[in-house]
Amino acid sequence: MVLNNKECTIPEATKQIIRNTAKELGYRPNKLAVGLLKKKTGVLGLIIPDNSNMFFSELSKSVEISARNLGYNIIYGNTNDVYARDYEYLKLFVDHQVDGIVITKSSNLPEEEEDIKNLSFLKKYAIPYVVVDRQPENFESNLVTVDNTLGGYMATKYLLDNGHRKIATYTGPLQLSTGRRRLEGYKKAIAEYGIEFDDQLVFEGNFTMGREKEALKQFLQNKATAVFCQNDIMAFGIYKEAVKNNIRIPDDLSVIGYDNISLTDIVYPGLTTINQPIKEIGEESVRILIEAINNENHAPEVKELYPSLVVRESVKKIKGE
Amino acid sequence: MVLNNKECTIPEATKQIIRNTAKELGYRPNKLAVGLLKKKTGVLGLIIPDNSNMFFSELSKSVEISARNLGYNIIYGNTNDVYARDYEYLKLFVDHQVDGIVITKSSNLPEEEEDIKNLSFLKKYAIPYVVVDRQPENFESNLVTVDNTLGGYMATKYLLDNGHRKIATYTGPLQLSTGRRRLEGYKKAIAEYGIEFDDQLVFEGNFTMGREKEALKQFLQNKATAVFCQNDIMAFGIYKEAVKNNIRIPDDLSVIGYDNISLTDIVYPGLTTINQPIKEIGEESVRILIEAINNENHAPEVKELYPSLVVRESVKKIKGE
Repeated sequence: MVLNNKECTIPEATKQIIRNTAKELGYRPNKLAVGLLKKKTGVLGLIIPDNSNMFFSELSKSVEISARNLGYNIIYGNTNDVYARDYEYLKLFVDHQVDGIVITKSSNLPEEEEDIKNLSFLKKYAIPYVVVDRQPENFESNLVTVDNTLGGYMATKYLLDNGHRKIATYTGPLQLSTGRRRLEGYKKAIAEYGIEFDDQLVFEGNFTMGREKEALKQFLQNKATAVFCQNDIMAFGIYKEAVKNNIRIPDDLSVIGYDNISLTDIVYPGLTTINQPIKEIGEESVRILIEAINNENHAPEVKELYPSLVVRESVKKIKGE
Repeated sequence: MVLNNKECTIPEATKQIIRNTAKELGYRPNKLAVGLLKKKTGVLGLIIPDNSNMFFSELSKSVEISARNLGYNIIYGNTNDVYARDYEYLKLFVDHQVDGIVITKSSNLPEEEEDIKNLSFLKKYAIPYVVVDRQPENFESNLVTVDNTLGGYMATKYLLDNGHRKIATYTGPLQLSTGRRRLEGYKKAIAEYGIEFDDQLVFEGNFTMGREKEALKQFLQNKATAVFCQNDIMAFGIYKEAVKNNIRIPDDLSVIGYDNISLTDIVYPGLTTINQPIKEIGEESVRILIEAINNENHAPEVKELYPSLVVRESVKKIKGE
């Protein structure tokens, strides 16, 4: 009673002896035991797919700062984009009784059923959660995302406005909403310019570096003058591959990225890209999650934010064909 | 008994009914309660100072992969280099009964006492831990680090060998072993060339971008021809500031970094730097930690790894004075 500050009739002097003794002995209330009773731990779980992609490391920083401002600690699980680990971490977090979960799912399995398995698991155990960035289909959840169709459209339209007509796109995984919608935006923009869609100008990547050699080869064989890379990391990969092949950016090939992570301004040439409001994504995710934690009847909320164009030096104006 | 697979005399048919009912009702053993009894959770805690610094995001990736290969999950705490959070996360992890902890401490407080407070806390609760990269003084711990004095020496000697004599250094926090030792290496190298130490050529940074404007101004006023930046992120900051001031790297100023994070090869010019064996640091940390977990009498082990020079294009050969 004394150590838990409960009301009791024990005299103050005795209380002091108990407190001092507890301190000397290094007593700490066992949080696991306390958690069993209190049902609140003040901890949020965060699942991110790739800690080495700066979009996610910047996002997790924003989530952490926002959570801390509201009195919560964050524990992370990094799945390295291996889908099965989403479920492992969800179980781990639930077993450790986090108060709520922020999740951006992994990309490497196309199964929509996996989303449903994961999110059904959370519903079953009544754990409040918010899905960020990568959107599950056919499942009503708290969701914070950015208008990816608009972002894809803006990137492609900027290349078109600069005279490019053979525009390639190096996409994210097309089983992810982010990948699919950025491609939709691309298609919408070229259609407005009366350009027919050519699947030889599309190469599917995985939002990491790695397949640039193949992608660039295919693009050049098909006479692309510009590439819309669906994230900055893949654009950096194209930069590396271009250097190896003596292809100058933007003189020989224009490149536009997506995310506007830090360092886009110190690669050479500075990377023109689509800005995502990363800080705001993190803040909104935490705000919605905590509303859901504090209100059992919280209806699923969808927050869509907006991208914007950031012009640097990686796109060259050319004459349209 | 049935759900915990304990030996008992309950008939198999009844067991099956119990299992099916548990499944239907969504029963999961409460890990907090189980943890109270079993004392093992299969979870390691990882405390890192700055998730947005690629050295640490690459390190945490290595720790996670190594841990997973040995059957452990990782939960992270990211302190954003705020010292008080080291202790908060340590408490959180201990309260959640992680089996062991990997910690790289924050940089923003000079108090050696804080190290002792944090590490004494872990000793008191008999939690195995390993300290990575940033070394506590006067406290015997499991430790994985890289020879920072050698790294600082190699970086500076390379500039000297290229004819530079007015060599500036943009250091990490000098209360950290990493910052202090890289500076010692710098001093050792210039002393070998008979150059007197000039504190006007030293500027203390914080292993993040931010103070490059001041640093560069001070270096140029003191006629530096080269800068040894104590990590790559700060070197990238110098790149940004150089562009703003029409200073060409390496023609007007040579720059060498430290860490060899990814992207050092696509900034322009490619950054010459000191490689740290990041993957191996993570692997060794986990190996030592798990040995300590499995052996109560494990004596503190110190593992020192070696840096190496990676030459790219950011250092110009000049005539020595």
